[in-house]
Amino acid sequence: MHRSARLPASFEPNPLSRMLSERRAAHLPVVDLTVSNPTACGFAYPEAEIRAALADRAVLGYAPDPLGSRRAREAVAAFHGRDLRADDLLLTASTSEGYALLFKLLGDPGDEVLVPSPSYPLFDWLARLEGMQARAVPSYFHERWHLDLGALDAAASGRTRAVVVVNPNNPTGHFLSRTEWAGLTELCARRGLALLVDEVFADYSLEAPPDALPTALEDTDPPCPLFLLSGLSKIAALPQVKLGWLAVRGPGAADHLEALAFLADQYLSVSASAQAAAPALLALAPGIQVQVRTRLRANLAALDRALADRPHLSRLPVEGGWSVLLRRPALDADDACALRLLRETGVLTHPGSFFDLPGDGHLVLSLLTPEAIFSDGLERALPQL
Amino acid sequence: MHRSARLPASFEPNPLSRMLSERRAAHLPVVDLTVSNPTACGFAYPEAEIRAALADRAVLGYAPDPLGSRRAREAVAAFHGRDLRADDLLLTASTSEGYALLFKLLGDPGDEVLVPSPSYPLFDWLARLEGMQARAVPSYFHERWHLDLGALDAAASGRTRAVVVVNPNNPTGHFLSRTEWAGLTELCARRGLALLVDEVFADYSLEAPPDALPTALEDTDPPCPLFLLSGLSKIAALPQVKLGWLAVRGPGAADHLEALAFLADQYLSVSASAQAAAPALLALAPGIQVQVRTRLRANLAALDRALADRPHLSRLPVEGGWSVLLRRPALDADDACALRLLRETGVLTHPGSFFDLPGDGHLVLSLLTPEAIFSDGLERALPQL
Ligand SMILES: Cc1ncc(COP(=O)(O)O)c(C=O)c1O
Ligand SMILES: Cc1ncc(COP(=O)(O)O)c(C=O)c1O
Repeated sequence: MHRSARLPASFEPNPLSRMLSERRAAHLPVVDLTVSNPTACGFAYPEAEIRAALADRAVLGYAPDPLGSRRAREAVAAFHGRDLRADDLLLTASTSEGYALLFKLLGDPGDEVLVPSPSYPLFDWLARLEGMQARAVPSYFHERWHLDLGALDAAASGRTRAVVVVNPNNPTGHFLSRTEWAGLTELCARRGLALLVDEVFADYSLEAPPDALPTALEDTDPPCPLFLLSGLSKIAALPQVKLGWLAVRGPGAADHLEALAFLADQYLSVSASAQAAAPALLALAPGIQVQVRTRLRANLAALDRALADRPHLSRLPVEGGWSVLLRRPALDADDACALRLLRETGVLTHPGSFFDLPGDGHLVLSLLTPEAIFSDGLERALPQL
Repeated sequence: MHRSARLPASFEPNPLSRMLSERRAAHLPVVDLTVSNPTACGFAYPEAEIRAALADRAVLGYAPDPLGSRRAREAVAAFHGRDLRADDLLLTASTSEGYALLFKLLGDPGDEVLVPSPSYPLFDWLARLEGMQARAVPSYFHERWHLDLGALDAAASGRTRAVVVVNPNNPTGHFLSRTEWAGLTELCARRGLALLVDEVFADYSLEAPPDALPTALEDTDPPCPLFLLSGLSKIAALPQVKLGWLAVRGPGAADHLEALAFLADQYLSVSASAQAAAPALLALAPGIQVQVRTRLRANLAALDRALADRPHLSRLPVEGGWSVLLRRPALDADDACALRLLRETGVLTHPGSFFDLPGDGHLVLSLLTPEAIFSDGLERALPQL
């Protein structure tokens, strides 16, 4: 049997995953500073309300609408505000599905999208599985992160179909500045590209500078087609519900949404349960976000205290999001450093290379980690850096 | 902005859909003999149990497993029996997602799959959206439906990756015979093709002949890679829950499942709610199936009574599934006939062409239609044929 060239050459886990499995199998302790699953982080969820929402009477009926139920779309539109309407939205089972639909809309096999890097590692695979390619265009750090608009412009070819940005970015936390927004939308308009903006972390602003663009929805009339992605995974810290959405704006928006609805109609992946629950779960989101933000701030403060008497270590500013980049002297490669930490201290971190950070000298820590574990991990790991 | 060549050239509804929208907008009555949504057909669902299942405590946690939760997979394996194990299964949000994963596993852009026709019209789009092509290979009717194994063999080219069959087929109701099964698996093994078998309707056997293969799972050791698709949509008549699955058997099964898990891991589309509810919903399935089968039989009997004194009309045997093929003198094209019926009698039927039935002389009726509506529709429509 033939197997698709879309697949990776091997399913071998990387050395860090292998060491982690071995430690777990040997019942050795792991202090996990990479947690991304909010439901396993000790937040107080309103359990009865969530369960009741998912068992709404509406779950008894099937009313297939490729855009998703109007009631759910109205709740999403109201949550975002900024003149967003139910008619601008399409529901998906996840942002991953949103990307799959968008790549199917925008490109043919062999086409590509540009992704300012470092960024969310899934883009490589999501594009490749649609027969396309995600081309990384390095951003640079100088006091804060900057998109390299010149490099993006130079990288655009006749096969380029879109630019994909995350606002604020994962893992750098970078919010686009208003100036970057103007430049990026101008570039996309001029080059005939779509602009995809992933704002799953937009509600988690921490050290955002005054000129940060809190959301691309501020721009009610972008000069290029704009596709915004978000969902309950981060907004309500409920990834298990499986509800995401796309908002469409800019030139041709109604036509693009019609095409997306055609695509979504072939799959109809969103459960009645998630759609019925959406209004109630969005109403619970602010209460959950407060807890998450408190956690992010507490861990960032703990990190700053721990770094205060270690001048050879530092961290990058965290404009937003759920992670922090720790800077260390690059005495060994980041991959080797993460392996060494896990082996010698039991602390799990992500090397910068995991997110395509150039060079060495960065570890990525999750600020979502329960406070006691985060502090324990720092205490064990920092002396080894 | 470029748009993908995967999209249809136009989103214009076909003339039948347009006439239907116009009738609905004008509040003219429609007697719908094409219903496929079981939740709108008057079945008595155990509502409290369904809602409780979807609000199981497990919905509060996220335990991402690309194969789907072991508990749900064990329930599916037990439901199917025939030595199926949880380790042979991968959960999906729908059979559509199952096809998307399988096409991504099996083919590269430009590759193709063979589909004995008439069949489920979605295959064309599901393949095309993965950059591939579904090539129809006509089956033929002689007392019963027959796969044309010679034609399938002749149609297989260097770019063919799989054969996709529906057992029992939609809309013909044809169950593969055991002889066809032997020939089909031999063909796939010899040609290095995968065999995809969609058994969503397998629990709805009506006039199946003795040599019908009730399920491909009877073959515990097929000579070719076998991928079986099913889900709650038809098995429990609960399409809104969004739970499907793939079972993998035959040469290389463990490797193929590993690759499918890699693919599913990029999307993780199945809600915690659907996974938590699966065991309870599968336990409810037999009680719902009894009602559906009673409906299918009652409508088939009503049709036979109505046809008894109309010798120019007849129906094909319904080995299984939810539809029946009505045969009529082809005085006009099937498309024109369906339009005429809707306009003059308000009765909605599907022309055979909708499912790629060759020539003219067939309408497809849904046996799921509530009995009173079905009889009313026959009374109005049959005199016009
Ligand atoms: C940038 C970004 N987008 C999307 C997601 C995941 O969203 P979903 O669970 O809706 O697929 C993540 C999760 O880490 C993410 O970092
Ligand atoms: C042959 C066949 N497979 C699959 C499906 C749909 O399944 P799902 O709702 O799981 O996508 C249908 C629905 O009509 C069908 O006819």
